[in-house]
Amino acid sequence: MPTTANAFAALERDGKLTPWSYQQRDARPHDVRIDVLYCGVCHTDVHQIGPWGRHFPVVPGHETVGRVVEIGAAVTTHAVGDLVAVGPVVDSCRECPPCLAGDETLCLTIATSAYGAEDRHGDGVTRGGFADRIIVDEHFVYRLPDGLDPAAAAPLLCAGSTVFAPLRHWGAGPGTTVGIVGIGGLGHLGVKFARALGAHVVAFTTTAAKAADARRLGAHEVVLAGDAAQPVNRLDLIIDTVPAVHPMTPLVQALRTDGTLVTVGLPDTLDVATFAMAVGRKSIAGAGAGGTRVTREMLEFAAAHDITADIELLGTGDLNTALARVAANDVKYRFVIDLKR
Amino acid sequence: MPTTANAFAALERDGKLTPWSYQQRDARPHDVRIDVLYCGVCHTDVHQIGPWGRHFPVVPGHETVGRVVEIGAAVTTHAVGDLVAVGPVVDSCRECPPCLAGDETLCLTIATSAYGAEDRHGDGVTRGGFADRIIVDEHFVYRLPDGLDPAAAAPLLCAGSTVFAPLRHWGAGPGTTVGIVGIGGLGHLGVKFARALGAHVVAFTTTAAKAADARRLGAHEVVLAGDAAQPVNRLDLIIDTVPAVHPMTPLVQALRTDGTLVTVGLPDTLDVATFAMAVGRKSIAGAGAGGTRVTREMLEFAAAHDITADIELLGTGDLNTALARVAANDVKYRFVIDLKR
Repeated sequence: MPTTANAFAALERDGKLTPWSYQQRDARPHDVRIDVLYCGVCHTDVHQIGPWGRHFPVVPGHETVGRVVEIGAAVTTHAVGDLVAVGPVVDSCRECPPCLAGDETLCLTIATSAYGAEDRHGDGVTRGGFADRIIVDEHFVYRLPDGLDPAAAAPLLCAGSTVFAPLRHWGAGPGTTVGIVGIGGLGHLGVKFARALGAHVVAFTTTAAKAADARRLGAHEVVLAGDAAQPVNRLDLIIDTVPAVHPMTPLVQALRTDGTLVTVGLPDTLDVATFAMAVGRKSIAGAGAGGTRVTREMLEFAAAHDITADIELLGTGDLNTALARVAANDVKYRFVIDLKR
Repeated sequence: MPTTANAFAALERDGKLTPWSYQQRDARPHDVRIDVLYCGVCHTDVHQIGPWGRHFPVVPGHETVGRVVEIGAAVTTHAVGDLVAVGPVVDSCRECPPCLAGDETLCLTIATSAYGAEDRHGDGVTRGGFADRIIVDEHFVYRLPDGLDPAAAAPLLCAGSTVFAPLRHWGAGPGTTVGIVGIGGLGHLGVKFARALGAHVVAFTTTAAKAADARRLGAHEVVLAGDAAQPVNRLDLIIDTVPAVHPMTPLVQALRTDGTLVTVGLPDTLDVATFAMAVGRKSIAGAGAGGTRVTREMLEFAAAHDITADIELLGTGDLNTALARVAANDVKYRFVIDLKR
């Protein structure tokens, strides 16, 4: 089996991807080699081929769907021919309390990213899904449930997991009111998942034109930033997907007593009046994509509720255009690259 | 019974207290009139007779201990002659979920402060404990348990409650590791309470000279800001009493997975890297003094464990000096004013 991967890489910190090939390792006992079909474009990719990048050339892509073409000698959970998916984490220590709980993205030694991270077994640097093949430890390879469109399912692996994991962790469900802030790649999936979980869903957007879309996606209410009528003391949980620094005080005021605003957009700073937090004993939490436990749960839940991302499917020739449009926030709601064209 | 109160008031927003008397209301059915013995000086007082003040003249003081001298016709919980105490809140709506749970400081209509707030029954503005008498609804008057020194107990009503309430709410106790940041009026009580609750206590200070004192107060460990050896992934809970904006990222890194930093100092902004929160799914919460339920519990706990504040007891002639020294952070650890001298 040939192990040359034909990939798209940023050769340097210039934000541009070009065809580049690399020699992929021979399969270790627990490795799964995957023929890539689709890979979603995440805002993180823009940063990682630019200012945040390390270990160039960088092959980005961490919302990968493909078919197993080779398994290592000890692999038991996947077979050649299986349709599978890989997300933003491909390894972790496997022995700290979060790892043992299946929360590998919270690994105390910092989980190994799908690309641009040092392999834990000395095999160079990890490389992502904008390539014809990837090789990943079986523990971090997910079976793609039947019935999910493989292209539209790709963004579930990062965008989907990043909203589903906190919705589950903080108990979104029947009887709760959940705010989703920012109706983009993450937020549109947040609305879909929160609605399917049984919550009353309030979408927050700065864009009046997105109000109708937010309702179509499942929001019961839409709140426009700056509207006179902002909710107060009403929401149990807010998932805030906005990556730019933005005023959080109105959002905190929208929370009920003891409510939590979870920032998954991770802006540089928290622009919030602490007094508004104190009068309702409210919290702001940080969170990212979920570990293997909740990611598996999410994929099953998505299949059961027919949830995938709203995508634009592009060929590899459009990769740089897609990245530029993601950087410009010009996407509804996620680009997925078809690696076969 | 005369109802002229001889108080100390800021006549205007100049931060200075002068003798000033006012006509106190006749006792309403649930009122308790209290002959004030002691009142602690809180940093809030400095703000409320200056930039934050409203409804001048302002009579500050919300850590008040005294003896009941008159009760309204319907009062059942206190009797003339009882030693009692009053904290920062003297009324609330009594019907929202937090009020019904005894968390009146979280009242959805915003609880009525001990001074400078509008009375809920149209009787002007509330006035605090730097006076020979106060009049307060029985629901917000606490019996002072036997065995507590009444002067040193006064700061429990705000400083003590503000650290005890979050320690209890977030589960400090045996098997937990709790950080207390800032060893001042609140922090020194935080160390005492956390220790008595059975937690392993880590004191954080910027002042090397306070390390020995922190250990005397009960800290098992002392961490100096900027020390090379900062704890990482070790604390279940941090009570951060620092009111100035300060770097919170090292504190967040000290928390275990899913840990919470509670800011009771309420700095203007949260200086924290959200990425550090996300990698451990950590939270920052706001909190203030506890309501009647936990305040009663705190007073009983303090009596059982012989916990009071470390105070400097001054006469009323030293009130302005005390306020100036509080503003300059020159106090170990709380001033209490003896209203009888």
